[in-house]
Amino acid sequence: MSKTKVLREMKERVCQANLALPQGGLVKLTWGNVSEVNRDLQVVVIKPSGVAYEQLQPDQMVVTDLAGQVLEGDLKPSSDLATHLVLYRQFSAITAVVHTHSKHGVMWAQGGRDIPPYGTTHADTFYGAVPCTRPLTQSEITGDYETETGQVIVETFRERQLDPLAVPGVIVEGHGPFVWGRSVAEAVEHGIILEEVAEMAIGTERVTPRATPISAGLLAKHYWRKHGENAYYGQN
Amino acid sequence: MSKTKVLREMKERVCQANLALPQGGLVKLTWGNVSEVNRDLQVVVIKPSGVAYEQLQPDQMVVTDLAGQVLEGDLKPSSDLATHLVLYRQFSAITAVVHTHSKHGVMWAQGGRDIPPYGTTHADTFYGAVPCTRPLTQSEITGDYETETGQVIVETFRERQLDPLAVPGVIVEGHGPFVWGRSVAEAVEHGIILEEVAEMAIGTERVTPRATPISAGLLAKHYWRKHGENAYYGQN
Amino acid sequence: MSKTKVLREMKERVCQANLALPQGGLVKLTWGNVSEVNRDLQVVVIKPSGVAYEQLQPDQMVVTDLAGQVLEGDLKPSSDLATHLVLYRQFSAITAVVHTHSKHGVMWAQGGRDIPPYGTTHADTFYGAVPCTRPLTQSEITGDYETETGQVIVETFRERQLDPLAVPGVIVEGHGPFVWGRSVAEAVEHGIILEEVAEMAIGTERVTPRATPISAGLLAKHYWRKHGENAYYGQN
Amino acid sequence: MSKTKVLREMKERVCQANLALPQGGLVKLTWGNVSEVNRDLQVVVIKPSGVAYEQLQPDQMVVTDLAGQVLEGDLKPSSDLATHLVLYRQFSAITAVVHTHSKHGVMWAQGGRDIPPYGTTHADTFYGAVPCTRPLTQSEITGDYETETGQVIVETFRERQLDPLAVPGVIVEGHGPFVWGRSVAEAVEHGIILEEVAEMAIGTERVTPRATPISAGLLAKHYWRKHGENAYYGQN
Repeated sequence: MSKTKVLREMKERVCQANLALPQGGLVKLTWGNVSEVNRDLQVVVIKPSGVAYEQLQPDQMVVTDLAGQVLEGDLKPSSDLATHLVLYRQFSAITAVVHTHSKHGVMWAQGGRDIPPYGTTHADTFYGAVPCTRPLTQSEITGDYETETGQVIVETFRERQLDPLAVPGVIVEGHGPFVWGRSVAEAVEHGIILEEVAEMAIGTERVTPRATPISAGLLAKHYWRKHGENAYYGQN
Repeated sequence: MSKTKVLREMKERVCQANLALPQGGLVKLTWGNVSEVNRDLQVVVIKPSGVAYEQLQPDQMVVTDLAGQVLEGDLKPSSDLATHLVLYRQFSAITAVVHTHSKHGVMWAQGGRDIPPYGTTHADTFYGAVPCTRPLTQSEITGDYETETGQVIVETFRERQLDPLAVPGVIVEGHGPFVWGRSVAEAVEHGIILEEVAEMAIGTERVTPRATPISAGLLAKHYWRKHGENAYYGQN
Repeated sequence: MSKTKVLREMKERVCQANLALPQGGLVKLTWGNVSEVNRDLQVVVIKPSGVAYEQLQPDQMVVTDLAGQVLEGDLKPSSDLATHLVLYRQFSAITAVVHTHSKHGVMWAQGGRDIPPYGTTHADTFYGAVPCTRPLTQSEITGDYETETGQVIVETFRERQLDPLAVPGVIVEGHGPFVWGRSVAEAVEHGIILEEVAEMAIGTERVTPRATPISAGLLAKHYWRKHGENAYYGQN
Repeated sequence: MSKTKVLREMKERVCQANLALPQGGLVKLTWGNVSEVNRDLQVVVIKPSGVAYEQLQPDQMVVTDLAGQVLEGDLKPSSDLATHLVLYRQFSAITAVVHTHSKHGVMWAQGGRDIPPYGTTHADTFYGAVPCTRPLTQSEITGDYETETGQVIVETFRERQLDPLAVPGVIVEGHGPFVWGRSVAEAVEHGIILEEVAEMAIGTERVTPRATPISAGLLAKHYWRKHGENAYYGQN
């Protein structure tokens, strides 16, 4: 396929995925963004900054290189671009990143806590708690803020020895969720699921204030029922 | 009616009932499944595994025997089929089973508690608490997991001496609701009601942390107002 | 206007008002009913029992006298008719009654508490707490249950010396809201408002567990801003 | 532009913005109102009082001077007009005011607390807590109530030394939110955001009862990312 055609299809997918965020109730106003990387072409396609979703068109998507240099597009890229780029550089298995301020995800971010794996709905997608990063330091905030946001995510995964494909999302402390996947469709789906399990986890603690995560056995059972070579959920 | 026609109508009803789940806000993505048994023909019709609801067609429904052997259909049946089959074998009065991850139902599952019968909305359908099963043991999880899930439901009803028609649903600990009925329409309705009373019960404990279930007298009054030969609710 | 025409218009209004309940998110399935009285003709028009809202037509509405005798209609009237009739007989200023199982109203009913007048949204419509009745006794439950439900509402208003027009609704303990008004449109509006203030009051106690009702002065100010001869809200 | 044309456009914008309130889930029934000032012409355009949103037309908008004298329109202006006028007279930088009884905003009003800046969603729009006013005194309530409501808002901003453009909204104790902006579109957006952060803040305290506001550094970073001459969010 020609590079032109590859880029056109990326723009269409990224535009479509951005539109899926307000439709799925994950973002209000202009909060949220989706990007996709093509590692062969070394390009990223991302939503423009602060554009209303109703007006979003594929040809408004911004094309950059992996250093964030704009290659195509009349609009400025999402201000969170630098965070996406860190994730693409450090998590080599991922192809798409989604950032939202989805309500219940933000509640955990603002509460500064990991989302515990309270049940099988969580375990079907996240092999363990959805981690919450440490707060950024003042020098990280006044420095290259969006890059540092990416770095603290990577640090969280490195220190806890997490596999970004087995735990495809994170809660940035005081901020909100970033999720990713092997395709934009998968990344958006992970955003929907993170929001759903975030809400369920809050309710679980209302029902039983000292609720405990499901057993390691049940966590593994559900995760591997859907993932890996012995998966038996779905049609593949 | 010819067996072909019976099966076609079953597939249509089961497909329709599966579509009612996301429409009723009970499932997201591909989480949830509905089946129907025909005890004369000894067949079960169930949703295929992991197929998007938007694409669901009656002829994609999978026909199996009561041992789970696929008789018709190009797709794999729902991975929860084995749970449905245990319920059909052990609860002889039921004709349809619905499984969802509806939000508030899951909160009670993850909190590991029965849903108390706090009011008449509950009593109109469930003659007592909606029971929560015990957790599955590690050997049940690593064994034939979906069959064991069915067994622990049956064990819960046997040990508590519950009639599956008087209490047409259960909360599987750490997982979510399974409901059933004498028809797919009734089973779906029970799924909607379980979710509603699950949400109301959480709110009840917010209003009054030490709320108490309604009296045995009011529970019986409302249940029998709608069920049994002296029922006087509705047009029959 | 001829009696036939009056009845036809009543049936249309009552049907319309019943349809407004699921549209306003106040009822699920067949839970809920609306009636209207005509005191000159000594007739009540009410929804039939247990009929799905999608199918509801004006000519299915049931006409009864004030003793509950069916005068017109092929269907059985709502099983809550007797409660409505007590209210019409005892509260001479009201013209319509609405019963729902709206979520947050039911939470207060199941928690067995009055809804405190926490703010001006409440005071605009209810001049004081929305009262919660005492629980029905066992003999009231096994007796003429729906009539007794009406009696316990009337008792609540008499003992607390409440004016049914100034406090146009009640919470029946363990059950849910009944509201009323000088027209079906007003009664439905009171149902919407009760549900809204019920939800806001739960949230208020989450924000401030020992929240206090608004002052008597602000309660009176807002109530009389919308009601009585010195009202200055709206166009009349 | 002729004065006639200016007024016609104001009426269209104000009507449109009022319609956006129920569409955005911020108001029920007739609760809520939007106005816009033109300081050159010394006129205010505001919603009429108590008119159903479905029927709202631009030519029903009421034109007044800054003392509240009606200049154009057959209908009475919103009963909250006097509050809007105080804000226009005292906050010289604002062009539009929005009042709602949005659910979660009201919960904070009824709980009598400022909405703490728990995260970046809040900081992107409000440079600090959304303040809650003191309760009105009895003489303020029985006096010129709506004017006093405006005065207590102004007092809150003066005593706390807040800039109305940096903190474009307030919670009136026991009542609900007032927000404003440099245009009606911006004011409506602030109403949406206040409601969203009000809900997120309640959830934050559920996740972590002793949650702490974000650091002054992160608050400033996010606020100035979107505002002022060094802003780099969006396309300007």
